[in-house]
Amino acid sequence: MKIERSPLAVPFPELPAIAGVTLHVARARYKEWDRCDLTFVELAPGTSVAGVFTKSACASSEVELGRAAAKQGRARALIVNAGNSNAFTGHRGREAVEAIQAQVSTALTCPVNEVFVSSTGVIGVPLPKDKARTGIAAALVAEPCCWQDAANAISTTDTFAKGAGASAMIGETRVELAGFIKGSGMIAPDMATMLGYIFTDADIAPAFLQEALERANGATFSCITVDGDTSTSDTVLAFATGHAGNAQIANWESPGADAFAAALADVCRKLAQLVVRDGEGAQKFITIRVSGAVSDDSARRVGLSIANSPLVKTAIAGEDANWGRVVMAVGKAGEPADRDRLSIAFGGVWTARNGLPVGGYDEAPVAAHLKRAEIDITVDLGLGDGRATVWTCDLTHGYIAINADYRS
Amino acid sequence: MKIERSPLAVPFPELPAIAGVTLHVARARYKEWDRCDLTFVELAPGTSVAGVFTKSACASSEVELGRAAAKQGRARALIVNAGNSNAFTGHRGREAVEAIQAQVSTALTCPVNEVFVSSTGVIGVPLPKDKARTGIAAALVAEPCCWQDAANAISTTDTFAKGAGASAMIGETRVELAGFIKGSGMIAPDMATMLGYIFTDADIAPAFLQEALERANGATFSCITVDGDTSTSDTVLAFATGHAGNAQIANWESPGADAFAAALADVCRKLAQLVVRDGEGAQKFITIRVSGAVSDDSARRVGLSIANSPLVKTAIAGEDANWGRVVMAVGKAGEPADRDRLSIAFGGVWTARNGLPVGGYDEAPVAAHLKRAEIDITVDLGLGDGRATVWTCDLTHGYIAINADYRS
Repeated sequence: MKIERSPLAVPFPELPAIAGVTLHVARARYKEWDRCDLTFVELAPGTSVAGVFTKSACASSEVELGRAAAKQGRARALIVNAGNSNAFTGHRGREAVEAIQAQVSTALTCPVNEVFVSSTGVIGVPLPKDKARTGIAAALVAEPCCWQDAANAISTTDTFAKGAGASAMIGETRVELAGFIKGSGMIAPDMATMLGYIFTDADIAPAFLQEALERANGATFSCITVDGDTSTSDTVLAFATGHAGNAQIANWESPGADAFAAALADVCRKLAQLVVRDGEGAQKFITIRVSGAVSDDSARRVGLSIANSPLVKTAIAGEDANWGRVVMAVGKAGEPADRDRLSIAFGGVWTARNGLPVGGYDEAPVAAHLKRAEIDITVDLGLGDGRATVWTCDLTHGYIAINADYRS
Repeated sequence: MKIERSPLAVPFPELPAIAGVTLHVARARYKEWDRCDLTFVELAPGTSVAGVFTKSACASSEVELGRAAAKQGRARALIVNAGNSNAFTGHRGREAVEAIQAQVSTALTCPVNEVFVSSTGVIGVPLPKDKARTGIAAALVAEPCCWQDAANAISTTDTFAKGAGASAMIGETRVELAGFIKGSGMIAPDMATMLGYIFTDADIAPAFLQEALERANGATFSCITVDGDTSTSDTVLAFATGHAGNAQIANWESPGADAFAAALADVCRKLAQLVVRDGEGAQKFITIRVSGAVSDDSARRVGLSIANSPLVKTAIAGEDANWGRVVMAVGKAGEPADRDRLSIAFGGVWTARNGLPVGGYDEAPVAAHLKRAEIDITVDLGLGDGRATVWTCDLTHGYIAINADYRS
């Protein structure tokens, strides 16, 4: 099936080179296709790494080994395989990952646990070791490529390449951040979205990089959903080469820590939103702002309950300001809520306030808003100060068409 | 939009009259339609009642008042309004329910809290009191009707009338049970499905009736899902008139208690399955059996995670034995699972065992099974003795068509 480019797609941005990061792509031919499907990122010695991974109880070997390796805090290489997730493949899958680590660590003369491997694609087929070996050999000698080439090479069902960048001042030193991501379906990250990578030339201690990444993740990747289905391979890694020459950031008291964390969160939010923009079958990008919850975490859960509701998502697809379905989704969230304090707005117009429909509100601006591609839903629970923003897309015939005819 | 009769529909069964129960229907004309939309069930004095209700934090006034009234254990009447759920309508909604209770209690000379009211339909529009009053006046003098007429009168988006019955021996006395139910979308009962009613002529103490209903509910209504969206109005009520003349069942030690509870659970299971058969857009009826979990409750949650996964449901719609998506849904359930002990079968054929694809399994019977309208998925977690069965339907273009064009 030919899948059309998402109507919510945006152009790939201009991204700066990151000193200490070199990108390469190659053809491993994991599937019957003629495209680059193996990405090799070489990282300068001493690069810090941090990672967040799926909480799935059925995570892939890549996730298990990556989670363990991230703890030691250093990275020299990243390999991403597209077309085969290598998940649910037992010891043969694990051996394939270990073979990749061995090949790359030998070439770079580094410890095996400084080689990070991700794989994405069909579940249940062991990654073919011979194809990986040939692809890596080609990637090791390939010319460096650009961000967009790498973003394309990690894609599977994505309909456009996704990247984002930011910069921050650490003292007098300007540092750059750039990242790319893939993901379209099976998106309800339970720590991170499918596969995302962020690179910076800043000098950041691994422990702080981990802390900043986890904090950013909580407000970005953990706040998006396409279909409520959590992948077995979700991974986001952040790499800091230190080549910018700033004074190292070791904790929140270090000069520039807040600025760096804000820039990191900015890149994470942009990347997360790009995944929603490529949600399978998406026609509308939906922002759901929840306020008045008993806590920020409670607000996030209420927001995700709305964002994951098939009835809310189909209502938006039908351009229907059906706030009754929003009430339903608030009610089922399992979080504190009081029907008689609940208020709901579409595009800034309150259609329900304090548990009652707003009589005679002006329907024209609401109807006009719902015809747009970018939809805003605001929910105030009227209970406390907790707030969160989550992002999702609508549920359309396109999602059914894509997913009822994907494997086989 | 004209919605076709579900391809999974079954004929309405023959159901016995229940002594002490008289059914009536009337036209309240809650919507612009020419059909009976108000149901009045008169119950003999002394009838026991038990109920399970939605856990939604945004439940309707009907649910709030019904939950409180069920605690006193006696019922004389049930009123069901179709076409307007009266949910999220604040004090005006509550007044409408209280007016109905007052009118019926006056006519029957009974306490107001022995009149149970349910409403189903659009959210956010107060039930029109004048239409209710006129409809009830007509229903109070209407000729008695049959089970199928009542099942039709409580329907909204249902495509067929749903009823089920059973009988049990209590000592030497045969007792009868009959029930009807409505529901098609917004089905992920968090205690009960949308609106279901079960009647028996058995003599059952209210406390035991409540206990037996809750137990049955846990293995039936709480084990079905259409779209994972929990209604604001979910209600199941059980009424026991005592007219059969059996020795009253007061607790689990009473003779016949187990037989009665089994018959009640049987009716509940049949009714729950009928709702799935009328799931919006459903083309396949899916039974998911989970075993080897750490507990029955854990097994149920794993089963519902599979049953609610859009990717699993679209795979079944596409007749694809995509067990990788089942692995994903097990992994995201938040319950104990071990990837390397997980086994999955379609139609009794194991496609994955102990964390590995089954090499060279016979695909022909699996492909043939997936073409059927009744699909069986078996998942063994390999951890313990916990087991559960859940029921759902597939996710098709029909669901999108129905729900992107419902209100307006």
